[in-house]
Amino acid sequence: MTVTHEVTNQAPPLTGFSAADDPALLAALRRDGGAWGEPEVLELGALAGSAAVQDQARWVEEQPPRLHTHDRYGHRVDEVEFHPAWHQLMATAVEHGLHAAPWTDARPGAHLVRAAKFYVWSQAEAGHGCPVSMTYAAVPALRATPELAAQYEPLLAARTYDFGLRAPLTKHGLIAGMSMTEKQGGSDVRANTTRAVPAGDGSYRLTGHKWFTSAPMSDVFLALAQTAEGLSCFLVPRVLPDGTRNGMRLMRLKDKLGNRSNASSEIEYADAVAWPVGEPGRGVRTIVEMVNVTRLDCVLGSAAGMRAGLRQALHHTAHRRAFGRELDRQPLMRSVLADLAVESEAATVLGMRLAAAVDRSQAGDAGESALRRLALAAGKYWVCKRGSTHAAEALECLGGNGYVEDSGLPRLYREAPLLSIWEGSGNVAALDVLRALTREPAALDAYFTEVEAAAGADRRLDAAVAGLRTMLAGLGDPERAQLVARSLAERLALVLQGSLLVRHGTPAVADAFCASRLDGAWGHAFGTLPPGADLTGILGGARTGRDAG
Amino acid sequence: MTVTHEVTNQAPPLTGFSAADDPALLAALRRDGGAWGEPEVLELGALAGSAAVQDQARWVEEQPPRLHTHDRYGHRVDEVEFHPAWHQLMATAVEHGLHAAPWTDARPGAHLVRAAKFYVWSQAEAGHGCPVSMTYAAVPALRATPELAAQYEPLLAARTYDFGLRAPLTKHGLIAGMSMTEKQGGSDVRANTTRAVPAGDGSYRLTGHKWFTSAPMSDVFLALAQTAEGLSCFLVPRVLPDGTRNGMRLMRLKDKLGNRSNASSEIEYADAVAWPVGEPGRGVRTIVEMVNVTRLDCVLGSAAGMRAGLRQALHHTAHRRAFGRELDRQPLMRSVLADLAVESEAATVLGMRLAAAVDRSQAGDAGESALRRLALAAGKYWVCKRGSTHAAEALECLGGNGYVEDSGLPRLYREAPLLSIWEGSGNVAALDVLRALTREPAALDAYFTEVEAAAGADRRLDAAVAGLRTMLAGLGDPERAQLVARSLAERLALVLQGSLLVRHGTPAVADAFCASRLDGAWGHAFGTLPPGADLTGILGGARTGRDAG
Repeated sequence: MTVTHEVTNQAPPLTGFSAADDPALLAALRRDGGAWGEPEVLELGALAGSAAVQDQARWVEEQPPRLHTHDRYGHRVDEVEFHPAWHQLMATAVEHGLHAAPWTDARPGAHLVRAAKFYVWSQAEAGHGCPVSMTYAAVPALRATPELAAQYEPLLAARTYDFGLRAPLTKHGLIAGMSMTEKQGGSDVRANTTRAVPAGDGSYRLTGHKWFTSAPMSDVFLALAQTAEGLSCFLVPRVLPDGTRNGMRLMRLKDKLGNRSNASSEIEYADAVAWPVGEPGRGVRTIVEMVNVTRLDCVLGSAAGMRAGLRQALHHTAHRRAFGRELDRQPLMRSVLADLAVESEAATVLGMRLAAAVDRSQAGDAGESALRRLALAAGKYWVCKRGSTHAAEALECLGGNGYVEDSGLPRLYREAPLLSIWEGSGNVAALDVLRALTREPAALDAYFTEVEAAAGADRRLDAAVAGLRTMLAGLGDPERAQLVARSLAERLALVLQGSLLVRHGTPAVADAFCASRLDGAWGHAFGTLPPGADLTGILGGARTGRDAG
Repeated sequence: MTVTHEVTNQAPPLTGFSAADDPALLAALRRDGGAWGEPEVLELGALAGSAAVQDQARWVEEQPPRLHTHDRYGHRVDEVEFHPAWHQLMATAVEHGLHAAPWTDARPGAHLVRAAKFYVWSQAEAGHGCPVSMTYAAVPALRATPELAAQYEPLLAARTYDFGLRAPLTKHGLIAGMSMTEKQGGSDVRANTTRAVPAGDGSYRLTGHKWFTSAPMSDVFLALAQTAEGLSCFLVPRVLPDGTRNGMRLMRLKDKLGNRSNASSEIEYADAVAWPVGEPGRGVRTIVEMVNVTRLDCVLGSAAGMRAGLRQALHHTAHRRAFGRELDRQPLMRSVLADLAVESEAATVLGMRLAAAVDRSQAGDAGESALRRLALAAGKYWVCKRGSTHAAEALECLGGNGYVEDSGLPRLYREAPLLSIWEGSGNVAALDVLRALTREPAALDAYFTEVEAAAGADRRLDAAVAGLRTMLAGLGDPERAQLVARSLAERLALVLQGSLLVRHGTPAVADAFCASRLDGAWGHAFGTLPPGADLTGILGGARTGRDAG
């Protein structure tokens, strides 16, 4: 065949890097008591950037899970089959304690260390983070019934990935799922129709359906169902203690925009055995303990996606020449990259700060618990909302190449809206901010205590804090307050991010953040930092490892 | 099987509507001389919303084109096979003259009418819009060599879809493709390495490759290749006049994020016969005539995507209850929907205004030609950049349901970045704005003449116009100007959109647009219109037809 051309000016593959090569992450880890976990973070970061794990991530995307409703003989089986790479990813996550391990780890900073590990490992493949997060989040809810927690918590925290449909308490490690939303209700779980009837032996029988149940091959599920007392929380095993299957049918897998490696299913319960968790009728109160933990992972996952997108954009533009010089030497592209870097660092520091608040809340710090209440809702709204816009811009830095799936950017872009929707879409999160303000005044005090730790350091931040107080004073009645709920959530998140960056961030990033996000010298797309922004300082901080040159 | 639940509170399917049920579109059509085309727009709009066409759109998404490099006997064939629904969509588009028909239509407003039709029809399925747009855009470039235009233009404009690899001049209608970018160059087409060697008979022989060639089953391509005189433009037939295949090999189809119904390929030329278009060495100048037309379609396609997403969001939220009332009666959701509606109407009026400028430029209006030069670059930057953010928010209005492919929202979300990247990504468009300002001072005069037609009507608009003049006065040297190129392009687009809305838009939309986009009372996500915005007025204007209730 004729040789028609030589291939030149393409970036080399981005592999063999460390996802932990991330100064903002490591600084946050050390700052808030997680230095002891740094070796594990570095180890996972290197794994995440290895060619072997990149291959695993590619396989699970290209060979998504398959549902088998029946076997060849016509028996109902309700099983999902995964590519072996899925199990490799899951095993790595569990062996490194990204699931429920921190709940049984007495070291201060256990949740912070786990957050850093989750953040670097998510950059390898986001889909399997779903069952990992749910297993992490199940524990605080399960503790509402100590007898159940005593049995299941050690297995949920065990660093052994033991896949397969067997009686949970006979296994070496467990994965937990969440089974909350129904067709007619969605976020409005009080509209659930699934019924739970007492069986007389302390257990219940569930009949009904769930519209989204991710990771249906999990060993146990936390599910919501209606009892005489109202909506209640239950633990539902996939397999009964005697080894027979519980009454849980998988109807269909969701054909999702992204998160394709993860099986998300529609299920039906038919007389499924379930054990009550927490008090009957207090189901929302019980499961909200789980939701508050998965929301943290939404923030961390979004921050991880931004960092992964930024890394790809920096790599491509460092190696691609156009119009006579490398893309990353051209002022407008530098401005875009720097703006993406500012957003990424701000997301990372906020996610890590929220994780530190989990540790301190667990240790009994009421102020941190109150801060977490408000800042998590605002952070979930804002960081997750920014995910898809950030991914679109990172993708565009690669031009047409970025629009092709094997560049990896489409995967980030398709994943991003999930994190904004899951565990309460933008409106749910923004309204939760209003609820926190109304019902828990201590949350706002804790918030201002936190942001005012940076008082006097940057006049734009000071002005933004004052502006926020004015905004809060003028909220008005609840219907009117709704109208500004998103603006308020955005502002709460930005001011908190600004204060963290001013105190701890790359100075050039902090300065550009205050000028753009707080002081208003910013457009409505990336690449619009004010001309005085120190692009070299920002990009120098963001570029690490092999792309530092 | 046990009946486990009833399905309630789901929106009914959105079908049987008219995509032309769009007051802003029809008003723009009538305003600028396209009233005569309204019946055809209405007909296509109803088709676009019909169940039959929705099925076609689903099929081409689920059964994307397949490349056959060889036949069963091992002969190289280089053919792409499509689902029959693809040909149905293409036939409808061609029969309604969405391709090159307006170039041979003497009626004033022919391009405007075609734009309205393209906009409503794109809402049915965006992928096949690519060859339709390229065929539309090929004509002005081809006219650089009148003898070629005389032969091919009538067939490119013929309203007959005649698919198949046969000698072009033996067919009843032709489709044209574009073959510009190479692996090493991308937007930097001057880095192209494909060589064109004169054959002695007026034709050339091309050897090289193209990294992106969409619609490779087209009959003819406009391609760029290097000659002794420099980069030159050529017409390359897929099949030679004697019926044999030209030397064009399809190496691979791109596995794209979206636009999946459309075959985008990597090709190699091996001694491909090609005829020069325009002067040798003036290839960029020739093909830019094509690019200026496809850029208009990028704006129209983005506006169409926004309108389609808005329609879905309005429909879902009108039929879905949560927390005791329909979603679209809840203040925060209303604010999100209204903000999406404002963005959508602004995109529509700008797209239609740019189309009207094509008609008037063709009629010899130098001011309109100058306006188009600047406003198209700014509009391409801004409207296309907003596409993915708008789609993400519309998707989120459907919650988890929106993340599942059969809702149709993922298709809009995946398509959006293409329009921002194709024909010059954001940075290329923003830098083109700077180029227009530097090289064609008449463009800026024409721009201000246009926006100042609204002078005095809204003080926020007036202030924004003044602010823009200040911004322009302080641009500085070229490297520094690059740093504000995106902010400037954004501002140029917003001020033009604002002036069009103030003059012609739904009053509530114009007011909210000026308050948010021009006066700064806006967050960095949708749903952040100022509390005084007339949500009822905005939503009343956006809701039409079956969702008006």
